[in-house]
Order: sequence, then structure tokens, then C-alpha cells
Amino acid sequence: MPRMYFDMFGQMKKQLKQMDKWFDAAAAYAETKKFDSTVFLGLRLAPDQFTFARQVQITCDTAKTAASRLSGKEAPAQADTEQNLDELRARVKSVVAYLDGYTAQDFAGVASRTVTQPRWEGKIMSAHDYFLEHGLPNFYFHLTHVYAILRHSGVTVGKRDYLGPLTQRMP
Amino acid sequence: MPRMYFDMFGQMKKQLKQMDKWFDAAAAYAETKKFDSTVFLGLRLAPDQFTFARQVQITCDTAKTAASRLSGKEAPAQADTEQNLDELRARVKSVVAYLDGYTAQDFAGVASRTVTQPRWEGKIMSAHDYFLEHGLPNFYFHLTHVYAILRHSGVTVGKRDYLGPLTQRMP
Repeated sequence: MPRMYFDMFGQMKKQLKQMDKWFDAAAAYAETKKFDSTVFLGLRLAPDQFTFARQVQITCDTAKTAASRLSGKEAPAQADTEQNLDELRARVKSVVAYLDGYTAQDFAGVASRTVTQPRWEGKIMSAHDYFLEHGLPNFYFHLTHVYAILRHSGVTVGKRDYLGPLTQRMP
Repeated sequence: MPRMYFDMFGQMKKQLKQMDKWFDAAAAYAETKKFDSTVFLGLRLAPDQFTFARQVQITCDTAKTAASRLSGKEAPAQADTEQNLDELRARVKSVVAYLDGYTAQDFAGVASRTVTQPRWEGKIMSAHDYFLEHGLPNFYFHLTHVYAILRHSGVTVGKRDYLGPLTQRMP
């Protein structure tokens, strides 16, 4: 089981690196269309949904926090102060670097670990349930919103940019 | 490990059931605004992205196909002929029923199983890599697009409708 969690976080890391490439496409699109690429940070799909910048921040935080909660290792707090694509890129990079510090062994205690949050009013979840029911779905939710906002705005990203290279081999 | 895959598919089943509830919200919205709810089926976030109906179909297929490929159990082929929300609902229900037929034991052979697709030109992936790098990210990608299309259209769905009830308890 520790290996499976480790692999799942490896995949989240891969997705974060793919997201970083979408920023290239966004920047290129802004240049072609001659608008300031910081405009992206305030875009949203609905007036009462989070902005692009916030979706990126939450994607990062969900991965970081889940790794921390499943392992008991500390996660660095990060201010949500990014003002442009390069600063968002740095945020993504910092989370990838944080996850790089993990080994499969760090998840050895997940089965006996529990998670709580202030708004849960004292209730707890097993770390396993928390990951499957909360951490992972939220990670993909916000990641996909980052993608969808760019796609909706006309940026040239496609499914391959979402999935990234697959670990394929000849039989 | 078989247990972990089983739990992951349990979570996908839960997400499919939540998606079914978004259809209620969509139907209610159509009634309030007095438009034909079949309009939803053709909506998309970008002109060269899949429609709402197709996103629902692919979400269903991704879950079904991944379970089949990881277990070696057959999956029923399904025609993509849904014409309204009720028919999409039936599609979702059929996949939930299909996944209900699984036990953890069905995933016991994943470690030694491989997956291929015609367009991979003879290449293969381990079933484990396939699930983490392809099946799961695609499932959440299309699921979140279904949600985002509704949200972008003004339908009242929120994060709780996405996540569903969490397995919480008092310590």
C-alpha cells in the first residue's frame, strides 16, 4: 500500500509538471493575440467560481496538503500572492520540489493515521478515505478547471498536454 | 494492492452517483428558466471540445473500461445514442451497476497484467501505470468537464455536490 500512495503522488507530480506546460501555451497565446498574460489570472468559468490563479494555488495546495496529512511530514505554508504566470510557475515548481522529498516509506503509516479539519467540527476521517474521497478528487477538480479555463479562453492545449507522456514499451 | 484498486473504483462509483445528482440540478434549472433540458447535451466549453453528452459518455466509459482492463473481465459495449438527461442518467446507472459486480479479488492480478490500445501501435502499458497515468486522470478530466459545463451555464451545483458525503466519524 505505501507504494501505491507513493505512485499516486508521483502521478500528481507529473500532472503539476504538465500544468506548467499549459502556462507556456497561455503565454504564447497572449503574445500572438497581443494581450497581457496576467489577464489569465483573473479569468473564471462562472462569476461565483474561483479565478484561474486561485485554481492553480488550490491544485498545488491539495497535493502538498494531502502528502503532508498522509505522512505526518510538515508542509511549508505558502502565501497566495502570485501576480503573473511566472510566479504561478514558481508555486508549481515549489510543490513538485516538496513532493520530490518523499519516498514510499513516508506513506508506511497511512493505515493507522487519521485526518481532521477545523470545519469538520471535531470529526475525523481515516487518512486513506481522506485521500480517496477528498484529496484526490479535489486535486483533479482544480487541475481540470485550470485546463478548462485556458481551453475556454482559446489557448491551444489538448488532451496530450493534460496526460503527458505515457509509460509505454514494446511487449 | 487489490484492495486499493477496488477502493479507487468505489470512489469512481461514488463520483458517478454524484454526477447523477447534477442532472437533477440541471433539469430544475431548465424548468425554472423555461428551456428544454435537452439543450444541455450539446453544450461545450470550447467549439473544439466535446459536448456535455459526450463528456458524460466518456466519463462512464473510462470507469467501465479501466475496471475491465485491470481485471480482465468483459465490459458491455454501449451505443452513444442518449438523447436527453434521463437517457444519460440510465447510462450512468448502468456503469454503476457494472462496477457493483466487482470485488477486490477481481483486481488480484493487476500487477502482472498489461494493457494496449490500437492507436498505441503495438506498445503496451502495465495495468498499474495505465490506471494511474491514463484511466484515472481521464475519468476526472471528463467528470470535471461535465460539472464545469453545468456550472458555466448557471446550474446551481457546488463543491459538496462534486465530492458527495465524506466518510467522517467522531474520534
